[in-house]
Amino acid sequence: MHNLRDDIQLAEPSDRLTDIMTLFSRSEATLLTERELEVRVDAIVQAFVNAKAISTDIDLVTIADQFTDSQIPLTACNVDQYFNELTSNVVSHSIHTSSPQFIGHMTTALPYFVRPLGKLMMAMNQNVVKVETAKTFSFYERQALAMLHRLIYGRSDDFYRQHIQTSESTLGILTTGGTLANITALWCARNAALKPQADFAGVEQEGLLAALEFYGYKGAVIIGSSLMHYSFEKAAGLLGIGDRNLLKIPVDHNHHMDVQVLRKTVAECRDRKQLILAIVGIAGSTESGSIDPLAEIAVIAREAKVHFHVDAAWGGPVLFSEQHAHKLAGIEHADSVTIDGHKQLYLPIGIGMVLLRNPHLAALIEKNASYTVRKDSIDLGKRSLEGSRPGMILFLQAALKLIGQQGYALLIDAGIQKTQYLANQIRQRPEFELLLEPELNLLLYRYIPEPFRQKLATRTLTQAEQQSINDFNELLQNAQRQAGKTFISRTTLSINLYGQKQAIVALRAVIANPLTTKADIDAVLADQLQTAAQLPVVVSPEHANSEVTCDR
Amino acid sequence: MHNLRDDIQLAEPSDRLTDIMTLFSRSEATLLTERELEVRVDAIVQAFVNAKAISTDIDLVTIADQFTDSQIPLTACNVDQYFNELTSNVVSHSIHTSSPQFIGHMTTALPYFVRPLGKLMMAMNQNVVKVETAKTFSFYERQALAMLHRLIYGRSDDFYRQHIQTSESTLGILTTGGTLANITALWCARNAALKPQADFAGVEQEGLLAALEFYGYKGAVIIGSSLMHYSFEKAAGLLGIGDRNLLKIPVDHNHHMDVQVLRKTVAECRDRKQLILAIVGIAGSTESGSIDPLAEIAVIAREAKVHFHVDAAWGGPVLFSEQHAHKLAGIEHADSVTIDGHKQLYLPIGIGMVLLRNPHLAALIEKNASYTVRKDSIDLGKRSLEGSRPGMILFLQAALKLIGQQGYALLIDAGIQKTQYLANQIRQRPEFELLLEPELNLLLYRYIPEPFRQKLATRTLTQAEQQSINDFNELLQNAQRQAGKTFISRTTLSINLYGQKQAIVALRAVIANPLTTKADIDAVLADQLQTAAQLPVVVSPEHANSEVTCDR
Repeated sequence: MHNLRDDIQLAEPSDRLTDIMTLFSRSEATLLTERELEVRVDAIVQAFVNAKAISTDIDLVTIADQFTDSQIPLTACNVDQYFNELTSNVVSHSIHTSSPQFIGHMTTALPYFVRPLGKLMMAMNQNVVKVETAKTFSFYERQALAMLHRLIYGRSDDFYRQHIQTSESTLGILTTGGTLANITALWCARNAALKPQADFAGVEQEGLLAALEFYGYKGAVIIGSSLMHYSFEKAAGLLGIGDRNLLKIPVDHNHHMDVQVLRKTVAECRDRKQLILAIVGIAGSTESGSIDPLAEIAVIAREAKVHFHVDAAWGGPVLFSEQHAHKLAGIEHADSVTIDGHKQLYLPIGIGMVLLRNPHLAALIEKNASYTVRKDSIDLGKRSLEGSRPGMILFLQAALKLIGQQGYALLIDAGIQKTQYLANQIRQRPEFELLLEPELNLLLYRYIPEPFRQKLATRTLTQAEQQSINDFNELLQNAQRQAGKTFISRTTLSINLYGQKQAIVALRAVIANPLTTKADIDAVLADQLQTAAQLPVVVSPEHANSEVTCDR
Repeated sequence: MHNLRDDIQLAEPSDRLTDIMTLFSRSEATLLTERELEVRVDAIVQAFVNAKAISTDIDLVTIADQFTDSQIPLTACNVDQYFNELTSNVVSHSIHTSSPQFIGHMTTALPYFVRPLGKLMMAMNQNVVKVETAKTFSFYERQALAMLHRLIYGRSDDFYRQHIQTSESTLGILTTGGTLANITALWCARNAALKPQADFAGVEQEGLLAALEFYGYKGAVIIGSSLMHYSFEKAAGLLGIGDRNLLKIPVDHNHHMDVQVLRKTVAECRDRKQLILAIVGIAGSTESGSIDPLAEIAVIAREAKVHFHVDAAWGGPVLFSEQHAHKLAGIEHADSVTIDGHKQLYLPIGIGMVLLRNPHLAALIEKNASYTVRKDSIDLGKRSLEGSRPGMILFLQAALKLIGQQGYALLIDAGIQKTQYLANQIRQRPEFELLLEPELNLLLYRYIPEPFRQKLATRTLTQAEQQSINDFNELLQNAQRQAGKTFISRTTLSINLYGQKQAIVALRAVIANPLTTKADIDAVLADQLQTAAQLPVVVSPEHANSEVTCDR
């Protein structure tokens, strides 16, 4: 037990300071308060995790009104009061992301062990930026990243022995999510394409203007499919490339990048003396779960000597599945691969990673001019977009061990199988139209109001009628979400339908919760049918705003 | 209780799938396993938080050897085995960042309530990127950021009523730490300096090359003091400016930016037609806790019409203290201010923020071309470097309420007071030299081996002797850390000593742990004296590597 008496002598504190120090101490009184809080938290946790409903039907304006006080309380309020407010104002209207009937986003039920580990992480409060505040965690993190590297690249035992705990090597970088992983990959790619030379210090040192000039380029681009996640716009903007120079290759009817257009675009960029920073392939698009033809793209990238990045934030863990891994063939040729931990690795929100084929690529983003120069330093903060970082590796390591390769394979297979079940249900019901054959465990469909079903069958829907169907689906998704019983997300697709490009509002199902059953899927559809029956169908000639709501 | 029978019918799973699903279920068996794990975690937590020693004396090579297996386990290992390994290999050699004798880094003891809340956060697993996966958390986060905004800018009730829950307004952005907060601020600044015009879409759309050309600039720079945190190098590199164009203004003997040189540099950049993206002031430098003359810098920035950013990652919470807030005078003129939650707000690692004076500045980094375009959408992911983000706001809200403004003031005051105690101890002992008068609660000093004390007193130390003292202090810090009983960090300063610039290895104390007492400070110094007595003094003419190890 830490003795507080010294503090009292030192600081001559008022009773208030003693009170505040009690928050930090390990006195019997504090332990007791912590236990009491734990009991209350446990009750919430159990109710929250058991919940089947998605949320209450409270509207957002009412919630907003509860959080308009902008004054920090002058004095500490008591724990009871704080906790009561937390429960009634915050927890009660939060989203039950673990509900088996919440099948619209990439957030799902988590394994039980993340909860006690969450507490452990807070107690240990390691800062992974450097060994002095993390020690074992630095090595623990390197190990897990090497494991994921091996899952993708399958290099030899020798390779991993050489690089796994060698400070000069970086097999992967842990981030807070896929967005930072994608940005980190493209940061590396930019610095490799415009790297230091004998008489030039490289883009990281000299800046983009000087680098493009030195290398004789008239601008730079990033190329990927039109389904690229919006984090690539952030990357293009941040890195000075410009969103306009994020070239979006159209996709075919399966949502796969059109490699003929890619090939043509690469040649055109060359002709225009534009640097191609990277070509991006998607392994599990956020919109539909589609997978680009990675092997073909890899060949084009290799021929053009361009960095090949694969955004496998969603689809990466499909590699665990013997049955489905072949869909990602070609990913092993990628120079960098993004995987999200908080998606199909079933870890809490806040963990992504980028794996790097070349263990020395990340040297190009190293910041240690006058810092951390110990020759043997293994400080992870040297090569990372972020600085201080929590010990999220605790969760990844636990999951790799407690779920294991076969466990993940079973989860992936089950998700895809359940998605096929949903697809079949949709095919069988006249109220719905399946918009795309699901490749993984994302599924796009829409509701067709009764007046339009005949015309749908004969493929004679007019633009105005399509717009009415769009409006109806938007209304339907809103109403279903607002009621809070079940949940499906929505997106707006630009697809070829009956021979012409159209903006189509789609309902979007994500089947990744291990606890979601056939009965849950039926319940979500039943809720949707019931909700739809109460909504008006309006034939509107106006063009409403298009909209996509998606993860990450 | 969720019924698993449907899954079994649906997936026709093996027993293995049932096992895996058990990890996610809320069955009695799973609950029991979770409780058992909790009991084990609780034992670790208590031991960990009570520990006074910093770590074991195990060397890094031995640790590294324990984490060289790069294969993901094929089958799940059992919880006992996993937990035993976790305890003996990972937890036991981690750093007790909460120890009152760990006074070398910006990671410290946390209030007890973060532990149960950590568990709650994992159970709720809200994704703050959008309302559909967060609901109340979106508004809860906006509220807390408005509170911090008010602490800095103190705008009117009307101002906050207008902006606090209005989707178009962004009073602040929550990040995983100060690095991302600084990068976000400079991203906004760049986009504001090169913003869209009638016939130009702006730098974010067009890229840096086109933007500098359009505006007629011959390059761009960021200006700050030589003590700027290394995240500004990341920002300069990422944003395409180039590290070389991060102009570092020298500091005076108090570590304050020399504003005369700043003024001159601004004029020179103008003459060279260089865009000044931002001028950075530091409120609590990582190296020494020094505070730049913010009010004077603000005037220069305003006159030059340049974005003024203040990095108050460390020092921001000093604003809570009636006694010391005046040291940050001028911060209210900043266009953006970084504050870290996991530093002096006493929150777990993984929370930083940037506060923005102009509620509409962040519109310049908004990504929503085809996403989240609902007019009334309050999705926080629209204006954020990161995508998916955990509900870290839970901790910030709890701390603001359970510590309160006065509580934070007491903690700040006590830290500064204890630092003065340490300074006095150092002044009184011939073994030590105080290198800088502490401005806040960071303190730089060094050990002077006996043979050099006379020459130190007469200011006649040679370069070689200074080098020997440097080598000795490096050795001392290493030995103290390696033994693991107490901890002080170190850095290398370039300071004017006896009239000439010299690289000086400094011991660096950070006094931020509320539980650190006078006796703890004495113990750290005593450990250092005892360690020093056993180390050899070598007079070496060689110039060893300089080194800085610092937070974030």
